[in-house]
Amino acid sequence: MKKVHTYLKKEYPRFLKELKEYLSFPSISAEKEHGPDILRTVKWLAAHCKKIGLRVSVEETAGNPVIIARTFTERDRRKPHFLVYGHYDVQPVDPLFLWRTEPFTSTIKNGKIFARGASDNKGQHFAHLKAVEAYLKTKTELPCDVSFVIEGEEEIGSGGLFSLLKKRRRELACDGVVISDTGMPGRNKPALTIALRGIAALEVTLTGPNRDLHSGIYGGSVENPAMALAQLLGKLRDKNGRITIPGFYEGVQKLSVGERKELNCLVSAATHQKHTGVPALFGEDGFTHLEHVGTRPTLEINGLTAGYQGEGTKTIIPSHASVKITMRLVPNQDPFLIAQRAAQYVKSICPPTVVCKVQVGHGAHPYLISPTNVRVQAALVALQKTFGRKPVLIREGGSIPIVTAFKKILDADSLLLGLALPDDNAHSPNEKFELANFKRGMALGARLWQELVV
Amino acid sequence: MKKVHTYLKKEYPRFLKELKEYLSFPSISAEKEHGPDILRTVKWLAAHCKKIGLRVSVEETAGNPVIIARTFTERDRRKPHFLVYGHYDVQPVDPLFLWRTEPFTSTIKNGKIFARGASDNKGQHFAHLKAVEAYLKTKTELPCDVSFVIEGEEEIGSGGLFSLLKKRRRELACDGVVISDTGMPGRNKPALTIALRGIAALEVTLTGPNRDLHSGIYGGSVENPAMALAQLLGKLRDKNGRITIPGFYEGVQKLSVGERKELNCLVSAATHQKHTGVPALFGEDGFTHLEHVGTRPTLEINGLTAGYQGEGTKTIIPSHASVKITMRLVPNQDPFLIAQRAAQYVKSICPPTVVCKVQVGHGAHPYLISPTNVRVQAALVALQKTFGRKPVLIREGGSIPIVTAFKKILDADSLLLGLALPDDNAHSPNEKFELANFKRGMALGARLWQELVV
Repeated sequence: MKKVHTYLKKEYPRFLKELKEYLSFPSISAEKEHGPDILRTVKWLAAHCKKIGLRVSVEETAGNPVIIARTFTERDRRKPHFLVYGHYDVQPVDPLFLWRTEPFTSTIKNGKIFARGASDNKGQHFAHLKAVEAYLKTKTELPCDVSFVIEGEEEIGSGGLFSLLKKRRRELACDGVVISDTGMPGRNKPALTIALRGIAALEVTLTGPNRDLHSGIYGGSVENPAMALAQLLGKLRDKNGRITIPGFYEGVQKLSVGERKELNCLVSAATHQKHTGVPALFGEDGFTHLEHVGTRPTLEINGLTAGYQGEGTKTIIPSHASVKITMRLVPNQDPFLIAQRAAQYVKSICPPTVVCKVQVGHGAHPYLISPTNVRVQAALVALQKTFGRKPVLIREGGSIPIVTAFKKILDADSLLLGLALPDDNAHSPNEKFELANFKRGMALGARLWQELVV
Repeated sequence: MKKVHTYLKKEYPRFLKELKEYLSFPSISAEKEHGPDILRTVKWLAAHCKKIGLRVSVEETAGNPVIIARTFTERDRRKPHFLVYGHYDVQPVDPLFLWRTEPFTSTIKNGKIFARGASDNKGQHFAHLKAVEAYLKTKTELPCDVSFVIEGEEEIGSGGLFSLLKKRRRELACDGVVISDTGMPGRNKPALTIALRGIAALEVTLTGPNRDLHSGIYGGSVENPAMALAQLLGKLRDKNGRITIPGFYEGVQKLSVGERKELNCLVSAATHQKHTGVPALFGEDGFTHLEHVGTRPTLEINGLTAGYQGEGTKTIIPSHASVKITMRLVPNQDPFLIAQRAAQYVKSICPPTVVCKVQVGHGAHPYLISPTNVRVQAALVALQKTFGRKPVLIREGGSIPIVTAFKKILDADSLLLGLALPDDNAHSPNEKFELANFKRGMALGARLWQELVV
């Protein structure tokens, strides 16, 4: 292993050059005009994986190609098999005028590399690639087979990879998935994310009159769909902040005292409030802000639409009013069942004076891996050794649908070893990645295989 | 008087030609590019009034000019003085593709004249001009002095006329104002409108986080401003349809049994529902649909805005949510006091987790003239003689701010003698005016002065 770490140190200047090259591709999946850039990125990445000694196949999908790069030609059945997941696509760069540097010309300043995709996600999975390169180039035996699965549609829903997982279920069967695409709470706070919330989406439209009505001529004699919607939405949450949809909390578990204690030392309420700018925090009675986000389901209004929204006044009764809702779900909540229950409840409390239409949108299951899982324990050791600090366990409030797909399709758990810092500006202008974390990511990647296979 | 009626009949073909000419001007006050058309309209109308024997002055205002056209040079203090109000400006024509004829080229079909402004309001006040022309041209003595006050900003708030009324308070002092700018419930249902609702406008904005937040990272730990707004709005109306703002109904009178009976025979609930297309009518408990509109105050949401309103889903907690509200008011409700009470109540029920901003908008007082008023009685006689049917008394749900301005500034009551039919499409494509009502309007205009002065 000494050879591996020496190689990583010695070759670091070249790795940085390569990372810059990788970051120079505007591989924006959301913008169709970047189709040719996507293909150039795939070509570069596939060639790079080949160069470092991996067996590469570029898998066509209905969307952007997925690169599968293996450390083996034939699986060695005596060794475990791990996937390393990453995505080569990046978010759009708008608003461009807020960038202080060119988004696709990497700029290094104060130990940070600024570029779109630096931390989300090119920099993070590139560190794992370099760690494996070190094994291969130093002819150090890997204690496991590794397949990199690097997709190009993470920012637009991972459609291609979902299909591919189903098609290649057998070939991709594995003992676990390593993903560095989440965050850590601070520079010296290494973290492993053990839980992600699921999601269920709903759109509700209430229609009253067949057109916007003159509020003088009709006001008072017909229901105002916007008022009906407000009253309906108001009923979805009680005064204790609990969602009132029957069965919503069915199966939702409370944390143990120990788990609560560990979770609650991450970010103070004052800091959390400062990050959001709200006049006061809010949440379901009996839980802290970190428990609200990490362990409790929630129902959020993402958008409201009704009537006249321009300058001044328009004295109408709007013909219809609509709302976009997403619910974040925690373990034991099924997104499809929850969406169905929500739709039923909404319909049941809708007054007969308006017509209620409910559209159920996308859903994703919540994810949870036990902190006592042997692989989690092994990953925690690798983190501790790499950072020289005790890593923390995180329950993230967001959803990563591909993680639940790995579980559902491949029956594989994911080890979420995030290297991004809260100020890395993922999805925002001036995205960056700390070079210290790039280095630690490589060291972590190298160590991980030793700890995971005992 | 026979001479007058004969003149009206004989000259009718010319009147129709003149009306068509008047309707050919696209005098749209809301669209700045029609400024030159407004001036051409004023020039034509002023010349026309002069031609029929009136003394005309074109009054400049901060907005569009007001035409004052008098039957006298010096007031005859032995005679009463009446104003006839009208407006030469018209609504925009969009959506143009829904018009079956050119909006500014009058088309006559089945006894109806189709053009923008035909009934709202050129056709209606033109009938009164023609009635007075008949007096002047046949040298029949008018029992009163008449001043036409025809403005060009009714569709955009009557700003110029408001100022003018204040400036010319003494000169425009009068015994009443005749206004044909409302409606009648059916072809053979002549009507006099005795009440109009007032209005008070409010805009409420709730702000939570300082930007749209990721609903995964923060959802559950901060208030969702759209949910806070829904719950706040929901509380403004109880389950009996009553507005819960303290003091909202203070001073609001109930109708007598007789008044209720007369009011409720106008339009059936089934017809009212059909006109709106709602699945069921709605309204404050204990009142009929016509009482809701004509006699009860109401609070309407005119528009709701929050977060993401495009296609699909955006998983955010919106930074803010806002609502546009107008309240329709009935006699004894003061718009400024009600707006203040509403603002106070909204602030008092707003949770501390969001910042509440309330903006009070425009207001207009409600209007009521007693059905036993001597001028109302006289106008009812004129209506009865003209239509050969007993006229009905209407309480309209809309607001005409200029009517309350006449009352407040000149201390003059208005006689609202509407000639528009419910299907005349005021403010909509294919606006029309029934030629039968144009003729009846002229006859009514001629008779009115005889009945009003005894």
